[in-house]
Amino acid sequence: MSEIAKTPKPPYYAVIFTSHRTEGDNGYSEIAEKIVTLAAQQPGFLGVESARESVGITVSYWSDLESISLWKQNSEHVLAQKQGRKIWYREFKTRICKVERDYGFSKTSKRLLH
Amino acid sequence: MSEIAKTPKPPYYAVIFTSHRTEGDNGYSEIAEKIVTLAAQQPGFLGVESARESVGITVSYWSDLESISLWKQNSEHVLAQKQGRKIWYREFKTRICKVERDYGFSKTSKRLLH
Repeated sequence: MSEIAKTPKPPYYAVIFTSHRTEGDNGYSEIAEKIVTLAAQQPGFLGVESARESVGITVSYWSDLESISLWKQNSEHVLAQKQGRKIWYREFKTRICKVERDYGFSKTSKRLLH
Repeated sequence: MSEIAKTPKPPYYAVIFTSHRTEGDNGYSEIAEKIVTLAAQQPGFLGVESARESVGITVSYWSDLESISLWKQNSEHVLAQKQGRKIWYREFKTRICKVERDYGFSKTSKRLLH
């Protein structure tokens, strides 16, 4: 989860998930890792980027809205979402976005440049 | 920069800036803070969220594409962008997105719910 996602040329979709955690791990880390692994196996998944300081931001990238919708309904993901509301998150916001344009810069490779 | 942005009902726009820093501060922190303050004064600015671990993610929210374009051309911002490519960033990716849908959850307030 520590790399800049290698996404294709736009258009594609991004789901921005911004959150504040509650105190303590409460089983979060294990499930979070599992959910990211599972997301990466879904049709239409393009990549994910994640960082947390006082606020946590996870951006997952998808080829189309249907893939996002199917992933939202995935049974293990649904269970994690319930745990999230009940235990792990004090608050969160999910934003579904269409990536219309992107550009990049790299001192060491050309892979981020479109 | 530690809160979940209080954005209006969609549609609005998001600029996802994902980066890897070079070693050392090299004047970054001071300028970064200045640039966020300046961004918040621009027409069309709606909010910003930011977190850094191995990767840094900053998402700024805007009312329309023209505001994003004007901010990109702001002279102090242009100078910071140059310093970014020259000194502060090993690599980055900027994605311009249209937020089509959002929803939220809060244990303590209703402000994130649309």
